[in-house]
Amino acid sequence: MTKKAVAVVSGGMDSTVLVYQLRDEGYDVTMLSVDYGQKHRVELDHARRTASKFGLEHHIADLRGITQLISKSSLTSDQDVPDGHYAEDNMKQTVVPNRNSIMMNVAIGFAITIGAEVVATAIHSGDHFIYPDCRPEFVETLNALAVTANEGFLPNNFHVYAPYVHIPKDAIAEIGDRLGVQWEDTWSCYKGGEKHCGSCGTCYERREAFTLAGVEDPTEYLAEPEYADPR
Amino acid sequence: MTKKAVAVVSGGMDSTVLVYQLRDEGYDVTMLSVDYGQKHRVELDHARRTASKFGLEHHIADLRGITQLISKSSLTSDQDVPDGHYAEDNMKQTVVPNRNSIMMNVAIGFAITIGAEVVATAIHSGDHFIYPDCRPEFVETLNALAVTANEGFLPNNFHVYAPYVHIPKDAIAEIGDRLGVQWEDTWSCYKGGEKHCGSCGTCYERREAFTLAGVEDPTEYLAEPEYADPR
Repeated sequence: MTKKAVAVVSGGMDSTVLVYQLRDEGYDVTMLSVDYGQKHRVELDHARRTASKFGLEHHIADLRGITQLISKSSLTSDQDVPDGHYAEDNMKQTVVPNRNSIMMNVAIGFAITIGAEVVATAIHSGDHFIYPDCRPEFVETLNALAVTANEGFLPNNFHVYAPYVHIPKDAIAEIGDRLGVQWEDTWSCYKGGEKHCGSCGTCYERREAFTLAGVEDPTEYLAEPEYADPR
Repeated sequence: MTKKAVAVVSGGMDSTVLVYQLRDEGYDVTMLSVDYGQKHRVELDHARRTASKFGLEHHIADLRGITQLISKSSLTSDQDVPDGHYAEDNMKQTVVPNRNSIMMNVAIGFAITIGAEVVATAIHSGDHFIYPDCRPEFVETLNALAVTANEGFLPNNFHVYAPYVHIPKDAIAEIGDRLGVQWEDTWSCYKGGEKHCGSCGTCYERREAFTLAGVEDPTEYLAEPEYADPR
């Protein structure tokens, strides 16, 4: 019997590679994206492209009804998205309290509902130092909560799967390259314009990942970043 | 400085008693209710009554955007709400996968946003044998996740507070009696009619709690239950 997986997919590089990898590992993948009123809604359309390419079910979890309660983040409010590298302090403006716990718990509820044994997330080691909910101990505790909270109602072998939690973004780019990911179907920029801005933290990370991985970057950026490369 | 608490309040007996208790313990209480498209929406109006009585902030977390993804429960679907005591197997129809993890994680995100040190829930020991996400180990793991997922961004002394997790509903009724809870401001019935039906699982529990606690039950029920009292 085919194993079912729910992949939480933003439409960015990492979660798109995740879809390719889960398919490569033999999973029957259902994609779940979250609409939290993000400025960069164009990422949801990019997730849809990958779903269409493979004919996968793609659901949107609409969490706009709680955004105003929780987020003071620049990702959803009128604040400007900060430029610069993620390492800089101003990227803390992009922290949404308890964000991954909320999104992943919705995904877990959905996975149990459809009988999927895996809930997969593309969180990776590059996010650890700024987002506490991207660390291995987050994944472990989330998994423990899922098992405890749903004992007796879980699909067999149910678990949270975070294959990139110990590797950086450029290693994900390498995996994606090997699996033939169509990078044009992915979106990173937090500013959500027509093209990638090239200057925000996620654009910086995107460029850096391609460069470090030695993978050609097909992305058209509006601008070169003005900040210095920290390497 | 006043300690702030977020109380997750359905509008039922237990969570209403919780609001009284938190106030009694000196907390500045903000109430949070969840709209998940429940049939018994009248409970939200009852929560509002308690908020008005004390002039408390009352927010609604609107999760209707994810209900169709998750719930096959009779509480939100076209299925009939089953009659009978909670102990019976048919009450499993009221289980919503991962429900408390989702709701509590939204509440945790909200609490961090407003700088509350406590997120309080009225889950109690009477729910343990049917809902795995009402057990003490659920509360412990949820607390561990909140701390791990938001390290560096938590209000001081932040924790999940579940003062009833080891006591049954009738003990909560006793506490409410002592604190002068206005029971008319509470709603239990899952069928959500104009009056309490008297026959569904929650009506059964409501009656039983008052009886066991020796507290007068001011509720007007439409019918006497047809099932035998298991005591």
